[in-house]
Amino acid sequence: MPVGTVATVKGVPQGTLEELGVEILLANTYHLFLRPGTETIRKLGGLHRFMSWERSILTDSGGYQVFSLSDFRKVREEGVEFRSHLDGALHFLGPENATAAQIALGADIIMAFDECTEYPADRDHAAKSMEMTARWAGRCKKYFEEHKQEVPWGSAVGPRSSAVAGLAVANDKRPTTADQLLFGIVQGGMHADLRRESAERTVEIGFPGYAIGGLSVGEPRELTREMVEATLPHLPRDRPRHLMGVGTPEEIVEYTARGVDMMDCVLPTRAARHGLLYTSEGKLAIKNARFAQDEGPLDPRCGCRVCARYSRAYLRHLYSSGETLAAVLNTIHNLAFYLDTMRQVRQSIKLGDLEGFLSGVRSRSLNSSAQGEDPA
Amino acid sequence: MPVGTVATVKGVPQGTLEELGVEILLANTYHLFLRPGTETIRKLGGLHRFMSWERSILTDSGGYQVFSLSDFRKVREEGVEFRSHLDGALHFLGPENATAAQIALGADIIMAFDECTEYPADRDHAAKSMEMTARWAGRCKKYFEEHKQEVPWGSAVGPRSSAVAGLAVANDKRPTTADQLLFGIVQGGMHADLRRESAERTVEIGFPGYAIGGLSVGEPRELTREMVEATLPHLPRDRPRHLMGVGTPEEIVEYTARGVDMMDCVLPTRAARHGLLYTSEGKLAIKNARFAQDEGPLDPRCGCRVCARYSRAYLRHLYSSGETLAAVLNTIHNLAFYLDTMRQVRQSIKLGDLEGFLSGVRSRSLNSSAQGEDPA
Repeated sequence: MPVGTVATVKGVPQGTLEELGVEILLANTYHLFLRPGTETIRKLGGLHRFMSWERSILTDSGGYQVFSLSDFRKVREEGVEFRSHLDGALHFLGPENATAAQIALGADIIMAFDECTEYPADRDHAAKSMEMTARWAGRCKKYFEEHKQEVPWGSAVGPRSSAVAGLAVANDKRPTTADQLLFGIVQGGMHADLRRESAERTVEIGFPGYAIGGLSVGEPRELTREMVEATLPHLPRDRPRHLMGVGTPEEIVEYTARGVDMMDCVLPTRAARHGLLYTSEGKLAIKNARFAQDEGPLDPRCGCRVCARYSRAYLRHLYSSGETLAAVLNTIHNLAFYLDTMRQVRQSIKLGDLEGFLSGVRSRSLNSSAQGEDPA
Repeated sequence: MPVGTVATVKGVPQGTLEELGVEILLANTYHLFLRPGTETIRKLGGLHRFMSWERSILTDSGGYQVFSLSDFRKVREEGVEFRSHLDGALHFLGPENATAAQIALGADIIMAFDECTEYPADRDHAAKSMEMTARWAGRCKKYFEEHKQEVPWGSAVGPRSSAVAGLAVANDKRPTTADQLLFGIVQGGMHADLRRESAERTVEIGFPGYAIGGLSVGEPRELTREMVEATLPHLPRDRPRHLMGVGTPEEIVEYTARGVDMMDCVLPTRAARHGLLYTSEGKLAIKNARFAQDEGPLDPRCGCRVCARYSRAYLRHLYSSGETLAAVLNTIHNLAFYLDTMRQVRQSIKLGDLEGFLSGVRSRSLNSSAQGEDPA
C-alpha cells in the first residue's frame, strides 16, 4: 500500500490513485495528530471524507514516528511524552489516546500503539520493550472495544469498506460494517525467541490481523528476513499478516512468498521524488546524462500513463530542472510498478506458480546488481 | 494561455491540461535555450514531441527573460550578451539565433526578438529602444523566411496545428501546414506616440499576428490600460493581437472587450503555488484559518475536478503542510477558472452581450475589493 503520510500521497491526486488501482492507503496518526489534529478530522467526518478517498485506509499508531521523528521522547508505562518535529511543542501519545485518535480518523484498519525497539538493542532491553508493547496492546484492545462505536462515519459506511469486508470474509467473521479493525503489532528486536514470544502474546490478546513491526530500522537485510521468518509461523495463517515498512520490489515478492499478506513502504514514492525509478529492467536514476536524448519510455514493459506518454529525455529534463511535475510523474510510475508487481504476485498465486515468478524476480535482481544498479 | 516555462505547466500533467481544455501553451525560449538546449529539443523532434503535447504552443523570443532574469546583460545592435541565471555562463541572443532557437523548438507561433524597455524610461531612451526592436523585427522576419523550413517536425504536422490553422483561416491566408507563424512585437515604453509608431513600423514589416510587449513591467495598471488602448487601433483587426504577460481574471475580460485576442500570464499558476485562488466570489488565500473546517468546495460555481472533489478544509491542510499536492490542485483550479472565464467571454461575444458580461465582472471585482480581497 502506498504511504499517504499527511492524508496525501505526495503530489498525486486521489483520482489518479484510483486509476492506478490503489485499493488501500496508509496514513500516519502521528502527523495527523499534530496537524490538522485528529479532532478536526473527526469533525470533518473522518479521514475518508476529509481527503475524499472512498477506498480503504490503514493508519499506523504513531509509535514508529514518535521513536524516529521526535528529538525528545520520554517513555513511561502510561505512554510516550515527545516533542513535535514541527514546532517542538510537548505532546503525549499512549495506548488509549493513540487508539482514540485512530477512531477519530476512522480508518478501516488501525494499529495498536507499540514501542518500536531501536536497533541495535541487547536482549534484555528488547525483552522489556517487547513486554511493554504487549501490555500496551491489551490496553489498546480494551479501549477500542469500549469506544469503537465512536467512529465519525457511524453507520454510513460507503464502498470504501469493500476491501475490509473482503478481509472479514476471509476471516470468516463478518464484523458489523461500522467496525474498524484493530491489528496487533509484534516487536522483539532482532531476537528470534522474543519475536516468537511477542507473536504468541499478541495472538493471545486476539486481533483480526497482525503486523510485524520494528524491522527495517537499520539492520542488515538478511536479519530482517530472519526475523520475519522467525515471526510468521507464530501468527495465524487465517488472519492478515502485515509487514510494516518493507520494501523493494524484490523484497515485497519474497515476503509474499513467505506468507506476508500486506506491506506498506515509503520507498516507491520517496525514491520517485529523488529520481529513482523502478522498471522491469532494474532501478534507474533518471538524472543520468545517458537519458538526455533517450526517446524511449521509462519502462518499455510498463503500461502506466507515464510510460505511455513521456520519454526518458523529457523525464530527465523535468528532474534536472527541479520541476514539480518530475515528482508527480515519477511517483505515478513507481506506484504503477509496485502495484503491477503485486498484481503479478496475486496472479501467479492463482496459477499456482509463485515460485516460478519468484525465480524470475530473483534473476532480474541479480542481473540488475551485476549492472551496478543496486536494487535498493 | 497557461505558461509552461520549461516545457511544463508546473505540477500539472499534460493529460490534465487536455481535460481542462487548454488549446495553447506558452513556453520560454530563454529557459529552453539554456536547458536542455534548443538543439537537444530539435534532435528530439521539437517541443511538441519532447513534452508530448499535440495542441498548440507559442514560444516567446527570450527578449523579456534576458532583460528580467539576467544579472548581467550588454545590449548591442547585434543582440544581447547575458549571463545565465542558472550558472552565470555567458550567452548571446540576437534576432537571428533567437529565431533559429524558436524554429528548432518548432512551436506553432513564435515571437520576434525584441528589447523589453525597462520602466520607467524617458522618451529618448524608449524611442531608441523601440527603434532597435523595429530593426530587430526586420532581421527576425528575414531570418525566418530563409529558415522556416528547418522546423524539426517537417511536414509531419499533427492535430496540434488545428488552433493555428484556425488562426490562418481567420487571416484568410492559409499557410502551408509546415509553417510556423512569426508574430511581431510592439514596444515603445509608456509613451503613446512611440507605441503608435512601433505598431505602424511593425505592421509595415508585416506579420500574421502582433503582440504588445513591454507592459506589466512595474507601471500602474491605469498606465498599462492606456498603452494598450493607444496601441490596439494601429494593429490590424483581422490579425490576432496578443497582449503579453497580462493579467488578472478581470483584466483579461477587460482587454478582450478592447480587442485583444490572446494573452498569456503566469498569474494563475504562480498565484496557485502561493495558495491564492481565483473564484466566482473573488480571490481567496487558502491558508486562512477560517477555511480550516470549511467543508465547502473552493468555488461553489466551478465545475473543475478540484471543486468537484475536495473541500476547502482539505486544500488548506495541504497548503499549510507544504504538500506538493497543494500546488497541483490549486494550479488545476486556477487554470480552470481562467479557461472558464475566457469561455464565458467567447460565449458572450457570440451572444452579442460582451458588455453585459463585462458589467458583471466589474461589479464582482468591486465587491471583492470592498471585502478587502485585492483582486490582484
